[in-house]
Amino acid sequence: MTDHRLVRVRAELTAAGLAALVVAGRSNVAWLTGFTGSAGTVVVTAATLTLVTDGRYTLQAGTQAPGVGLVIDRRSAPAVAGVLAAALGGDTAGRAGRRVGVETHVVTVDDHAALGEAVSSVLPGAELVSAGHRLETLRRVKDDGELELLTRACAITVRAWEDLVGGAAGPLAGRTERAVVRALDGLLVEQGADGSAFATIVAAGENSAGPHHGATDRPLTPGDLVVVDFGARVDGYNADMTRTLFVAGPGAEQPAPWQREVHALVARANAAGRAAAVPGVRTAAVDAAARDLIASAGHGADFSHGLGHGIGREVHEEPLLAADATGSLSRGEVVTVEPGVYLRGRGGVRIEDTVLVRDGDQGPEVLTATGRDLLVVA
Amino acid sequence: MTDHRLVRVRAELTAAGLAALVVAGRSNVAWLTGFTGSAGTVVVTAATLTLVTDGRYTLQAGTQAPGVGLVIDRRSAPAVAGVLAAALGGDTAGRAGRRVGVETHVVTVDDHAALGEAVSSVLPGAELVSAGHRLETLRRVKDDGELELLTRACAITVRAWEDLVGGAAGPLAGRTERAVVRALDGLLVEQGADGSAFATIVAAGENSAGPHHGATDRPLTPGDLVVVDFGARVDGYNADMTRTLFVAGPGAEQPAPWQREVHALVARANAAGRAAAVPGVRTAAVDAAARDLIASAGHGADFSHGLGHGIGREVHEEPLLAADATGSLSRGEVVTVEPGVYLRGRGGVRIEDTVLVRDGDQGPEVLTATGRDLLVVA
Repeated sequence: MTDHRLVRVRAELTAAGLAALVVAGRSNVAWLTGFTGSAGTVVVTAATLTLVTDGRYTLQAGTQAPGVGLVIDRRSAPAVAGVLAAALGGDTAGRAGRRVGVETHVVTVDDHAALGEAVSSVLPGAELVSAGHRLETLRRVKDDGELELLTRACAITVRAWEDLVGGAAGPLAGRTERAVVRALDGLLVEQGADGSAFATIVAAGENSAGPHHGATDRPLTPGDLVVVDFGARVDGYNADMTRTLFVAGPGAEQPAPWQREVHALVARANAAGRAAAVPGVRTAAVDAAARDLIASAGHGADFSHGLGHGIGREVHEEPLLAADATGSLSRGEVVTVEPGVYLRGRGGVRIEDTVLVRDGDQGPEVLTATGRDLLVVA
Repeated sequence: MTDHRLVRVRAELTAAGLAALVVAGRSNVAWLTGFTGSAGTVVVTAATLTLVTDGRYTLQAGTQAPGVGLVIDRRSAPAVAGVLAAALGGDTAGRAGRRVGVETHVVTVDDHAALGEAVSSVLPGAELVSAGHRLETLRRVKDDGELELLTRACAITVRAWEDLVGGAAGPLAGRTERAVVRALDGLLVEQGADGSAFATIVAAGENSAGPHHGATDRPLTPGDLVVVDFGARVDGYNADMTRTLFVAGPGAEQPAPWQREVHALVARANAAGRAAAVPGVRTAAVDAAARDLIASAGHGADFSHGLGHGIGREVHEEPLLAADATGSLSRGEVVTVEPGVYLRGRGGVRIEDTVLVRDGDQGPEVLTATGRDLLVVA
């Protein structure tokens, strides 16, 4: 299933003049080999593909990555150096034959120093160079297997949401943020998720003005806006969706005008951001499509984060959709579109979808397709 | 609540001749300041304590870390350098006054390079040095607040386990590993957990021979040993417990002699490891107490991982209990004791407890106190 990924990685090696690539990022390792253990380093050369992990994972590595060479050793640096020496030691291409790319944006300073020392002792003349975000860049465009998992994760997310607001977990008013998190996490699992993609956010009232609020024992109270940001994880792939509710009750039967206005503004920004997410458009321009709308309504300073991010094996991955982002979108990329307006002391609104960038003039496919009206719940 | 932690960190700075410490490890940041956001760097000097994070976390940082200086900037390296320059720029102590400790076991090569460049441009003469695992070492001994959370997390774990084997989620035989994971994760949340401490392991039959098996759609089948390794997370603190079940049914009413023998052996090793976990004992000796017992029964090669690990804000933290570990246990440390025997193709057994190291001759306090007999379930 992942052979075509290896082909692409080897093409990158050739293009970059690297004799080997040491893959350390967990999601990169999983994407390339299928191995999902918590500890593992992969060495790729033109002729070899080897996973170095420890004894806890012998069986799992054999099952998940059957075609991959396996070295079991808890001391990663000397083991990786040994693999490199075995693969490249006989290489007579000279210096160019011993340039080893390392994921320096992932590897710690200490691990890099240990690897450098180990390599210099068994592979004289080898040079560790930064490999850049090559695998993260390759991972941006999802293949069919990945799209199936992302689609499933998003569908589960939508069903759990519809269960929640449909009353499957009982009334929401009066329950604490934490209790609603638990209910929603339970619904995700009931609907088929392996678990939650990240710590579910339920932020009520003034707490909704914090874009990444951690749930507290504050009860959902009539008059509150409640931001709910969550997603399912399925076979290592993640969904990400946000909707904002209004809690009705005695004294607050309907949203206040400012709540309706902010919600409508964010909904328009969400629609504008989604419409802009087409192949070839600059990522900064997608951000601007939503941000300009919010700014022209006078809330530019209240939208304090980027518009969105790639999503896949990681909840946050490339590309970033932000004012200072570089590059463009491509067909097959999956990104979130999540504008928000946060008014300190009063509350906030965020509306987020996970979308698939596709060809044609119909805009992206929304994987988290469910209503975006300001739902009034009791 | 965490002021006494800051006092200890500043004493470390003085002892190490550091003018400042840049704290990058997420759990270190949370332990020191209370801030639990996904992005944040803390700068500690003798007179200042500053958190650098991005705009998503303005509100959360103010709530969780009210006494901590706050700098909101998405570009971390220049912001951290600015904080260092403001705090140390007027220092006339010369070179010693500008030694800045960095967590090089956490910081990536690229981030370290960016920080070095930013610091050199605003604080000439400053020197970045490795700070070592100072905060991880301080975090080993838990204070009362931490012990309360760990105790609660372990109690929830035990109740969820007793619910599961008591039939609260229905019969287990015939259900898939994945379905049992979901049921157990649900019970954890029902019992009051914020979520699961890590991806719950349910490994049945031959899968139980992989110490860190990921759950599959394999059904629990009569005759299987089933390793169940899981724990609750409460307010950022984690529990970790493993028990091994036998699935009974037509043709396999009772465990086979080899299953009983291996289980009894691992139970004895668990007891021996727990008994050895007292203040002052070398961590390698705790490992040996359990390992020697398994080795003398002829299964030394089948116990392929260390005996245990510290647990707290992270599921795996210092100290490590392993054959090649260094150092000793101290009063107030919380560690797991988790011997296992894994027979490839047949199955395995692991029995794990989270224990608190305490004074006196009664041995550690078992926080995951529940039966360790080989339970026969249907």
